[in-house]
Amino acid sequence: MSLFQKIYQSKKTKARLGIIKTPHGEIETPAFIPVGTNASVKSLSPEELSQLEVQIFFANTYHLLLRPGPEVIQKAGGLHQFCGWKGPIITDSGGFQVFSLGQPHFRPKNQDELFGGKLVKIQDNGVLFRSPIDGKEIFLGPQESITIQHQLGADLIIAFDDCLPYPISKEKARLSLERTHRWAEISLRTHQKLNQQQKTPQFLYGVVQGSYFKNLREQSAKFIASLDFDGIAIGGVSVGEPKEKMRQVVDWIIPHLPSSKPRHLLGVGQIDDIFDFVERGIDTFDCVIPTRLARMGKFLAKKVAKPLDITKKRYKTDFSPLQKDCRCYTCRHFSRAYLHHLFKSKELLGYRLLTIHNLYFFTQLMKQIRQAIKENCLEELRHEYLKI
Amino acid sequence: MSLFQKIYQSKKTKARLGIIKTPHGEIETPAFIPVGTNASVKSLSPEELSQLEVQIFFANTYHLLLRPGPEVIQKAGGLHQFCGWKGPIITDSGGFQVFSLGQPHFRPKNQDELFGGKLVKIQDNGVLFRSPIDGKEIFLGPQESITIQHQLGADLIIAFDDCLPYPISKEKARLSLERTHRWAEISLRTHQKLNQQQKTPQFLYGVVQGSYFKNLREQSAKFIASLDFDGIAIGGVSVGEPKEKMRQVVDWIIPHLPSSKPRHLLGVGQIDDIFDFVERGIDTFDCVIPTRLARMGKFLAKKVAKPLDITKKRYKTDFSPLQKDCRCYTCRHFSRAYLHHLFKSKELLGYRLLTIHNLYFFTQLMKQIRQAIKENCLEELRHEYLKI
Repeated sequence: MSLFQKIYQSKKTKARLGIIKTPHGEIETPAFIPVGTNASVKSLSPEELSQLEVQIFFANTYHLLLRPGPEVIQKAGGLHQFCGWKGPIITDSGGFQVFSLGQPHFRPKNQDELFGGKLVKIQDNGVLFRSPIDGKEIFLGPQESITIQHQLGADLIIAFDDCLPYPISKEKARLSLERTHRWAEISLRTHQKLNQQQKTPQFLYGVVQGSYFKNLREQSAKFIASLDFDGIAIGGVSVGEPKEKMRQVVDWIIPHLPSSKPRHLLGVGQIDDIFDFVERGIDTFDCVIPTRLARMGKFLAKKVAKPLDITKKRYKTDFSPLQKDCRCYTCRHFSRAYLHHLFKSKELLGYRLLTIHNLYFFTQLMKQIRQAIKENCLEELRHEYLKI
Repeated sequence: MSLFQKIYQSKKTKARLGIIKTPHGEIETPAFIPVGTNASVKSLSPEELSQLEVQIFFANTYHLLLRPGPEVIQKAGGLHQFCGWKGPIITDSGGFQVFSLGQPHFRPKNQDELFGGKLVKIQDNGVLFRSPIDGKEIFLGPQESITIQHQLGADLIIAFDDCLPYPISKEKARLSLERTHRWAEISLRTHQKLNQQQKTPQFLYGVVQGSYFKNLREQSAKFIASLDFDGIAIGGVSVGEPKEKMRQVVDWIIPHLPSSKPRHLLGVGQIDDIFDFVERGIDTFDCVIPTRLARMGKFLAKKVAKPLDITKKRYKTDFSPLQKDCRCYTCRHFSRAYLHHLFKSKELLGYRLLTIHNLYFFTQLMKQIRQAIKENCLEELRHEYLKI
């Protein structure tokens, strides 16, 4: 059973339309995947996600491993049963978060200074780290990550990789890539074995790494493409590098990927990123932007240099909706003045109503992008959304 | 136009069925009124309130006076327009909160020590206090309170009264009651004048005070009943006194109230209170209990000594709903284990799902109480709900 079906290939660019077919439903691509770290897209019910035309959400293995623990979710009958979302779910490997803990700027305060001042100890077979919740030592390697992801039971899962900070030396990047590739093979073997024992199949994405070095990225793309993964994810971008570098990296990789497999770009993106990477042949994106911005009181709008801030004084008596032509639940029922008031009063409803608007903004953007690919007018759509 | 229509009088007790008819819809009584302090029942959308069969909610004039200010809500077209709730709304006078500021245990920290160490200065014509938001001096008296409540535009509004702590000397209570009665007359005159200038009428409740003194409460009941109020509210209960005292006070008052006017008991109550006061002839209640408990992780259930705590470890792998036979959205879709996880992870959805359950618990309780009054089986229903 093939996970991906390509429907249409743009003649002008590498943009393409497709369908990802999972046991919990189909995903029309290009698609944006909102993040629901703890098996909850913050503040929203599964019912609201459906109404917003969200097709799939992204849960974080690292967080679910710490709480409530994969054995609890397995006992519940898997993530879908546990959180009440009937559509497709994707989980990551946990690697990104575990490695982030090793970066000084990510280190939580009041934590025991273990493993030489770091929370994590990277070994050749995985990572040893301490739970920030109860201090327990946990080991996560490719076998562990894939086993946990099978316990969680998401439709799409991701191989365990070594995540590097930016910038880094070529020698370090080369050694790290060797490790990532070794882990990719272990991830795949573990997955194939577990999948055979299951009624409902899961689908595994391999991860292309290689930092910002052309030959490493090409080598990684070719290697990951040569293995029997169901999809390809691109990791190690969106780690603080300049935007043009991100684009460069994806341009190096795409020619070496089979067109028959779906391509996911991890942790991206902003609206301009979405346009640029859809044109470069990316099918799916995950990013905390719409949900995180909402909790900060920021709402998305077309043709603005940056998201607008509902807590600004000028909205206190602005009785128009967030966006004039928006058909989301929030814009159909509430004014900027009421939302301003809710944020000023720290009312929980405010976070939710802005999350609804921002996610709707993204699902509509992706819908229009799919339409525009079909009609060969992606550039016109870009001008509608972006201030250029 | 009469606000209240009595439908049925129990023969066994003083319990009665009625309808409060407002410009924004009818309220079947006895009814419980959830609190939406800042024009938002915490975490819920107006749509959800309707689905929960909430008939009316209670907004706080004090909070709305401070933020966003009555002029903003008036500009929006009134509270209903502002917050998107199409059903009836009731506001209080602001008095209770202003007087609470004068009590040492209510005083916010880091506040200028004004007015002789207190935030408020009670005068014969009203109360001078400082906004805890911007430190501005604000004067609130009967005329100001009623004018603000007309700017807010709730269907039901409440006269400005002097709220006493418990316990208090009889002499202080007598002087305070004189003030409350004087303010009642000013409230009524101000209301009548403003109502004549409005297209949509509002309805004013007078407030019976008198602390825990029989002759003061009787005197107050007779006086407030003699004035042309649309409804009668009972204030100064639920201020830390023993439960039997609350019941005693209401028993003194009820015989002196006309049966043709609706009776509201301010700030009550718990489930046993609801049963006891419905039997004593109370029509409506407001209380933060179901919404506040939900935010603390407490959920309501039948026949338990106190609300249950979803954060307890025993719920970590409990895959049953909050309550087995509950038909609320939360119980139909989510397990205790998932709700436990949401609370442990401080996910916003948790607060909302518990609020939904607790409010549904109360609306169903009131629905069953109305049915039981009709069928003369209130005692049986009490045994179904309470552990006795």
